[in-house]
Amino acid sequence: MSTPTQESRRHQVVVIGSGFGGLFSTQELKHADVDVTLIARTTHHLFQPLLYQVATGILSEGEIAPSTREVLKRQRNARVLLGDVSDIDLEARTVTHSTLGHQTVTPYDSLIVAAGAGQSYFGNDEFARHAPGMKSIDDALELRGRIFGSFELAELASTPAEAERLMTFVVVGAGPTGVEMAGQISELARRTLKRDFRRIDPTTARVILLDAAPAVLGSFGEKLGDRAVKRLTEMGVEVRLGAKVVDVDSTGIEVEHGDGRRERIESVCKVWAAGVSASPLGRQLAEQSGAGLDRAGRIEVDDDLTLPGHPEVFVVGDMMALKGLPGVAQVAIQGGRYAAEQIERTLTGRERKGPFEYFDKGSMATISRFSAVASVGKAQFSGFFAWVLWLAVHLVYIIGFKHRITTLLHWTVSFLGRGRAERVVTEQQVFARQAISDLGPQFSPELPPVADGRPDAE
Amino acid sequence: MSTPTQESRRHQVVVIGSGFGGLFSTQELKHADVDVTLIARTTHHLFQPLLYQVATGILSEGEIAPSTREVLKRQRNARVLLGDVSDIDLEARTVTHSTLGHQTVTPYDSLIVAAGAGQSYFGNDEFARHAPGMKSIDDALELRGRIFGSFELAELASTPAEAERLMTFVVVGAGPTGVEMAGQISELARRTLKRDFRRIDPTTARVILLDAAPAVLGSFGEKLGDRAVKRLTEMGVEVRLGAKVVDVDSTGIEVEHGDGRRERIESVCKVWAAGVSASPLGRQLAEQSGAGLDRAGRIEVDDDLTLPGHPEVFVVGDMMALKGLPGVAQVAIQGGRYAAEQIERTLTGRERKGPFEYFDKGSMATISRFSAVASVGKAQFSGFFAWVLWLAVHLVYIIGFKHRITTLLHWTVSFLGRGRAERVVTEQQVFARQAISDLGPQFSPELPPVADGRPDAE
Repeated sequence: MSTPTQESRRHQVVVIGSGFGGLFSTQELKHADVDVTLIARTTHHLFQPLLYQVATGILSEGEIAPSTREVLKRQRNARVLLGDVSDIDLEARTVTHSTLGHQTVTPYDSLIVAAGAGQSYFGNDEFARHAPGMKSIDDALELRGRIFGSFELAELASTPAEAERLMTFVVVGAGPTGVEMAGQISELARRTLKRDFRRIDPTTARVILLDAAPAVLGSFGEKLGDRAVKRLTEMGVEVRLGAKVVDVDSTGIEVEHGDGRRERIESVCKVWAAGVSASPLGRQLAEQSGAGLDRAGRIEVDDDLTLPGHPEVFVVGDMMALKGLPGVAQVAIQGGRYAAEQIERTLTGRERKGPFEYFDKGSMATISRFSAVASVGKAQFSGFFAWVLWLAVHLVYIIGFKHRITTLLHWTVSFLGRGRAERVVTEQQVFARQAISDLGPQFSPELPPVADGRPDAE
Repeated sequence: MSTPTQESRRHQVVVIGSGFGGLFSTQELKHADVDVTLIARTTHHLFQPLLYQVATGILSEGEIAPSTREVLKRQRNARVLLGDVSDIDLEARTVTHSTLGHQTVTPYDSLIVAAGAGQSYFGNDEFARHAPGMKSIDDALELRGRIFGSFELAELASTPAEAERLMTFVVVGAGPTGVEMAGQISELARRTLKRDFRRIDPTTARVILLDAAPAVLGSFGEKLGDRAVKRLTEMGVEVRLGAKVVDVDSTGIEVEHGDGRRERIESVCKVWAAGVSASPLGRQLAEQSGAGLDRAGRIEVDDDLTLPGHPEVFVVGDMMALKGLPGVAQVAIQGGRYAAEQIERTLTGRERKGPFEYFDKGSMATISRFSAVASVGKAQFSGFFAWVLWLAVHLVYIIGFKHRITTLLHWTVSFLGRGRAERVVTEQQVFARQAISDLGPQFSPELPPVADGRPDAE
């Protein structure tokens, strides 16, 4: 497949990140005459589109986060290193990364930067403690603990107001992740937990979906956005648009409405699914190369995904700003493969391909079981058919990771039945996290007898 | 099923603990004319016999730790409260428990204490940080992070000595849990991870099983103990008996052999599966009632499992000392059911049953895939047949928790193939835990090129 290069040393490709961009570019280099070093902060690849299912107890973390080195075990020209990249030196062509505080410098001939994006709190990083984001397995497990933990604490609350605050869930951000989280928390409360408690009635839980923008699922267009609002409302989710979050603390969230009116919502468990902010490595690359950065910290790359003036450095996925392409899996996958192909063409003396062209395969979001919205080209679907499409596409995409069968089973259990198999809250999550222990003084010294306060008890 | 009692107030049963003793006694009271309040520190029941499979990446935590309130959701006379019991007042007949530092007092008419046991470090609690125990989901997830994390760090080590220290695993305690952990870590290194790395060769990992006692699986008898040693040795596990642990730190463990000779073993990842120590509630009960405590802190109960002088208080499972019964699931299950039946008999005016009689269903431990030891009555089995028996028994017992199918699938994948589905290490586990970050200064500033140091690479 590849032609021989100088005998002494193979072309060194360094890939930063084990997300869609990093993993797919590495795999695309499988037959190239190169050594690939993939450096990532986590030991797993993350199938981020299903992260909300880990946060709400449907799938286990292992099912959506296969070990990166297991995925790449048979690709003998690739090695995987656990490390946090702190510096990229474009002149020396080195990447500095550290593990447990100790630094390593790895040289590259070609570099693919796919370090992704983190959650953005729009300058209010102190919100993070009270409203975790939805970007990592750590986030999802923390939220799983908070969501299930809130119901546990509500069962112990001494007044209806306390129980209500514990059973009010606020999701900030009405993009696909926010919509999916709001829908799942509502199903959890109304179906899964329906008969699990004795004092509280989980079906009375409030789920509020907030966005400063005037629409839900803005990128899906007005028609599907309206469908989503309708379905969410039927499910009991309160959708509040044009509502900007101005403050978040341990027991509530404050929003400013379009008319300037401020409102405080009492809520213990908040989820932040609003903005994203590209990896801080973007700023470094911009400073060294003179490339521009957009507001989300993404690098304005040339139309072949390279850093201006650096044909050996590719930026793909959520870190890249090009023609307004969205931060979705397909952009990262296609960008990663394109970068890998360009590197291989250069090495084998072929001409590089023309500008990167994104093929939009469409987008979709589930709202509840049996109901989704999907937009494929000019066609738009909603309801059951869109949900079947969602199911099929996600099953196909998860195949590569061997977890198709267990995932299908977990889905069968939770879509057809009521069970959720993955509900573990660790002691650490309930007891040790400061964010929740701020709530301490609100519990009652004496509990009413069993079965109080539940209309259908006994 | 039950006769009516006074109209005003039903008999209140409080159960402390959601382990085998607590859960099975609560379920046994399903048709009794009582209110049952189960108070536990975790929101899940734990199927402890399979904890080692979570620690070694085979099963997810949800599969062995179903939500207690989901298991009990249809039992309308039972409520579940999350709480840590701090005090039992035998005179006032109340239990004081706290959640997030806030106290609640719950009165009882009958009490079943099934708070179990924690790991014992025999007075050296400072060992815990360097050698986590194997008693909770938190323990298993921490160990999962350390075991898989050690290989990740070894791949980055700068010298063979560092890599060796990171690939030396020490399991302290040669009871069933220790034997199962040692066997699984060995299989992990020799089969699952075989081709995952480029610089290190995981099949050269050392697994050392230590015990101060002269035998492995002492409670199984000499013949099965010898079989286990033989099989473990074939798998590459180094079994060292008569070796007492005298010190543990972040990079090693020091043992004293029978002849007084001391030896330090360089090892980063240590597992403590040695002693157990009953819940500290035992001491309280002993002080108030005058009951004796054995060396492991277990309460010497009357032959009907009650606290001396307190026919309304039952102690079951790992907290109870009676005729040398072991701390195994069956003792807790049978004890819990017995206690529940005694309470129901008393309430319905029937005579209480005679002394508790334990029916020994046998014991078993897996050593590797396709190989186990089992002792049932006078019959002893080892090898493949014992393994099939183990598989069948555990599948049957896990049925009640709906996870049979996914468990069977995960087992198929990991016993027949090489994969382990649940390998996630959270960022917190790799980076934030002091215990591992003590290792910081041992990594190399420069890495050799890909494929170095692996005889079979490329």
